[in-house]
Amino acid sequence: MKPLDSLFLARANELAAHGIGNTAPNPPVGAVLVRHGEIIGEGYHHRAGAPHAEIEALKATKAIDSKAASGATLYVSLEPCNHAGRTPPCTQSIIDAGISRVVIGAIDPNPRTNGSGIQRLREAGITVELANDATSAILIEIFSHAMQNQRPYLALKLAMSLDGFITSKPGVQEWLTSEEERLYVRNLRIMHDAIMVGAGTIRIDDPQLTVRPSHNRLRPYYRIVLCETGTVSETSRIFETVENYERTIIITRSSAPKLEKVAEVIVAEDLTAALQALYESGIQSILCEGGPTLGARLIEAKLVDRFYWAIAPKLLANKDAVPVLTGVDLAALQRELHFDHIEQTGDDIILSGIFLENRS
Amino acid sequence: MKPLDSLFLARANELAAHGIGNTAPNPPVGAVLVRHGEIIGEGYHHRAGAPHAEIEALKATKAIDSKAASGATLYVSLEPCNHAGRTPPCTQSIIDAGISRVVIGAIDPNPRTNGSGIQRLREAGITVELANDATSAILIEIFSHAMQNQRPYLALKLAMSLDGFITSKPGVQEWLTSEEERLYVRNLRIMHDAIMVGAGTIRIDDPQLTVRPSHNRLRPYYRIVLCETGTVSETSRIFETVENYERTIIITRSSAPKLEKVAEVIVAEDLTAALQALYESGIQSILCEGGPTLGARLIEAKLVDRFYWAIAPKLLANKDAVPVLTGVDLAALQRELHFDHIEQTGDDIILSGIFLENRS
Repeated sequence: MKPLDSLFLARANELAAHGIGNTAPNPPVGAVLVRHGEIIGEGYHHRAGAPHAEIEALKATKAIDSKAASGATLYVSLEPCNHAGRTPPCTQSIIDAGISRVVIGAIDPNPRTNGSGIQRLREAGITVELANDATSAILIEIFSHAMQNQRPYLALKLAMSLDGFITSKPGVQEWLTSEEERLYVRNLRIMHDAIMVGAGTIRIDDPQLTVRPSHNRLRPYYRIVLCETGTVSETSRIFETVENYERTIIITRSSAPKLEKVAEVIVAEDLTAALQALYESGIQSILCEGGPTLGARLIEAKLVDRFYWAIAPKLLANKDAVPVLTGVDLAALQRELHFDHIEQTGDDIILSGIFLENRS
Repeated sequence: MKPLDSLFLARANELAAHGIGNTAPNPPVGAVLVRHGEIIGEGYHHRAGAPHAEIEALKATKAIDSKAASGATLYVSLEPCNHAGRTPPCTQSIIDAGISRVVIGAIDPNPRTNGSGIQRLREAGITVELANDATSAILIEIFSHAMQNQRPYLALKLAMSLDGFITSKPGVQEWLTSEEERLYVRNLRIMHDAIMVGAGTIRIDDPQLTVRPSHNRLRPYYRIVLCETGTVSETSRIFETVENYERTIIITRSSAPKLEKVAEVIVAEDLTAALQALYESGIQSILCEGGPTLGARLIEAKLVDRFYWAIAPKLLANKDAVPVLTGVDLAALQRELHFDHIEQTGDDIILSGIFLENRS
């Protein structure tokens, strides 16, 4: 690695982030072409089916036709693909363009590439450096997970008072957290293919759960309602069509003819089967926003890959207060968690982390 | 302020910290004497009755007799006192030593000084700068509070699972937090004059609650048991005399002849009266380490000045789990908290902050 390598790679990561939310089933990827210390082309993967980041960067220099990138260094957040998918293999385009050096943020976990891209480039005489960059790895966390587990990456988002409750009385919606926290959650939604809630949340809060207008989405954003313990009214706000970008899926244990008129209905016998069906319909990542029963059930089923736990500077303890998780003997499960990220959003704290057993 | 002022003031703050836990009813104070950019003397206030920090620094230069500090700059974390207490006023010693400039971290909240020290020095022709330094202010947080409220500064320390419980079953002690968190708490204990727990904690955990061997205390360290809902056995470990430095106080609603043989007994009708009695016996600060009933009662009585809320990466929810606070309708109180400090200790997170109403 040369002195400026980490800066140009950081720029590639930054470009990659523009694709977040739009690239699934592909990961977001960014690329920068540098010659004589100067950026001559930049690009990122806009959406599945569109050109890969490397090609976008080459196009920006007109290098595909003119050899304008001959002798340049390519910085790319993810290993270039070595297989023809919806687009030709990037390795061939890089070789054809006369690029002499490639700096890669993270290796591609896709078994069809996974090191073979690096090997192909080296065989063509190109110098290749694998940076194993932390930010590049975060960009593909969802993609890696889906590759390895063949089910949706599931993030559980909860919010509670400092003493562990979501509301002081059952059935009452309280605005626990700050405006800043809610903006943070909106950005979390953008990062995922879908939002999921339990039927109870729809009955009590009747939320719309949209990501617009803060994000111009290039692919559908799914709103999923999991009806395990009861159903929801077909006049709920979640069934209002906001834009063509938002689609609603209902997961039930038995058929629900009324709901079929307002949403797609998937019949699944348990949570694992439900997630499997969602994965097969192209949903790679889900942000679950509760409530307390669904959250506890997902943890019990070992389906939670990351938690975002918002803590509001309030106390709600009283005999009727509703705990943040309920309905499952979580103590008996003895799950070990790990905090890896702490964020202050307005007046609130968000603790994020993983369940250790999921990674072992 | 000159370029190096903040560094020398930081050194004065660092020296002050050596006195933490030993100086009550005085605050910890540190002082540095600098001439021609070189430190010629350092000192801190060791304990009540011992020389103040400024005098220790002057003694270190032998300046009191020899004028060795003539023309020097004095950096001191707290405004020099202007009244004769157990020691003569520091302002006079500073003037006598021929010091030409004084940089002060924080103004003395003691009404007997509170700006008059600065005024006295200026009248003597000395240049005085008040830095209003954040660290200097933290060093006197406890002292300022006691000055203003005439009752002990009370910090409430709690530990819970991420879902808000202290144990999965009543009466069972669980090691929720990491070794690092327990070391952090031991340091918190050192910062305060006393530790306080409820009778339930003594009955269930039977802790010794000592600060030794990690701290050589120059003044007694009090261990307080508040018996509101029941009494404790006189054979509890808290009554074992570890060293002469640790003394145990029992607070009850009615006389307790058996306990009088093993501890000092204070009879008080409520929490406010109990804290008043402790303040009058020379206790300026208390770290309360629970349990859930005492914690809730102290919050209800608006007696908590700071909370340290440890969160362990575990889940304990089940039908028998004991919540972190209980016995009081906290939701009805609508207390607003503010997080001002986040710490990661081992696997745990500690959120610290204040109750906003206490400061308004």
